Amino acid sequence: MQLTRLTDYGLRVLMYAALTPANRKCRIADVAESFGIPRNNVMKIVNKLANEGFIYTTRGKGGGFQLGKPETEIYIGEVVSCLEENLQIIDCESYCGCPIIPSCRLRRAFSSARVAFLQELDSYTLKDLVGSAAPLRRLLRIASR
Amino acid sequence: MQLTRLTDYGLRVLMYAALTPANRKCRIADVAESFGIPRNNVMKIVNKLANEGFIYTTRGKGGGFQLGKPETEIYIGEVVSCLEENLQIIDCESYCGCPIIPSCRLRRAFSSARVAFLQELDSYTLKDLVGSAAPLRRLLRIASR
Repeated sequence: MQLTRLTDYGLRVLMYAALTPANRKCRIADVAESFGIPRNNVMKIVNKLANEGFIYTTRGKGGGFQLGKPETEIYIGEVVSCLEENLQIIDCESYCGCPIIPSCRLRRAFSSARVAFLQELDSYTLKDLVGSAAPLRRLLRIASR
Repeated sequence: MQLTRLTDYGLRVLMYAALTPANRKCRIADVAESFGIPRNNVMKIVNKLANEGFIYTTRGKGGGFQLGKPETEIYIGEVVSCLEENLQIIDCESYCGCPIIPSCRLRRAFSSARVAFLQELDSYTLKDLVGSAAPLRRLLRIASR
């Protein structure tokens, strides 16, 4: 029941942005280097996060990205819902003609479990993930001003 | 955030066993045929379910498998916990030297979301999944006696 790697990267990008002082922009290359993840994947997820309004990007020299809203207003369940391409716990579509679909109660059980999962994640905001910021800034070598 | 196919098969095997009258044994070939899933996968998951005590098997002529305990005492969260080989929502181990591990709060958030997911599934028993039995028996062509 793992999330996709891109969702994971997306959460890291948001944490990085939350840890960066508001007067500075984040650069894709820095995020990729700090976490040791491929630059083109960071670029892909930055675009997706921008489309969803979690960050906004500025092009050109001195460009980069910043949080699109306060870190206390970014709920982790919402982020995961937006980034995961498939929230089906079991992919019924991949069974050609699963015989029990008309009376299947498993889907209902998984649907309510998925809601419980996302609701629990929504009890955390991006602010909760970065905490006091200082320890994570040290680990990621982000200057505090 | 999908479960593995084997977990899915495991739940189907249990539903099939719950739908089969107590005086009859289930055969791997019948389960495989009814759901259109590979026989060796059914065999693999039947062994696992037997090891976990959810079913018991009888070898030899006239052998097969039956539920190891009443369907009202088989909790779906417990089954999923036993069958999923990896319940980590994000696989931190696959990052060689993830830099934020010492101060990561994401793992805590995912850990509590996983608990919420499994707790919700535990509010369903195998009995809830098969309901009145008749509709699923019809779909799977299981005789009612």
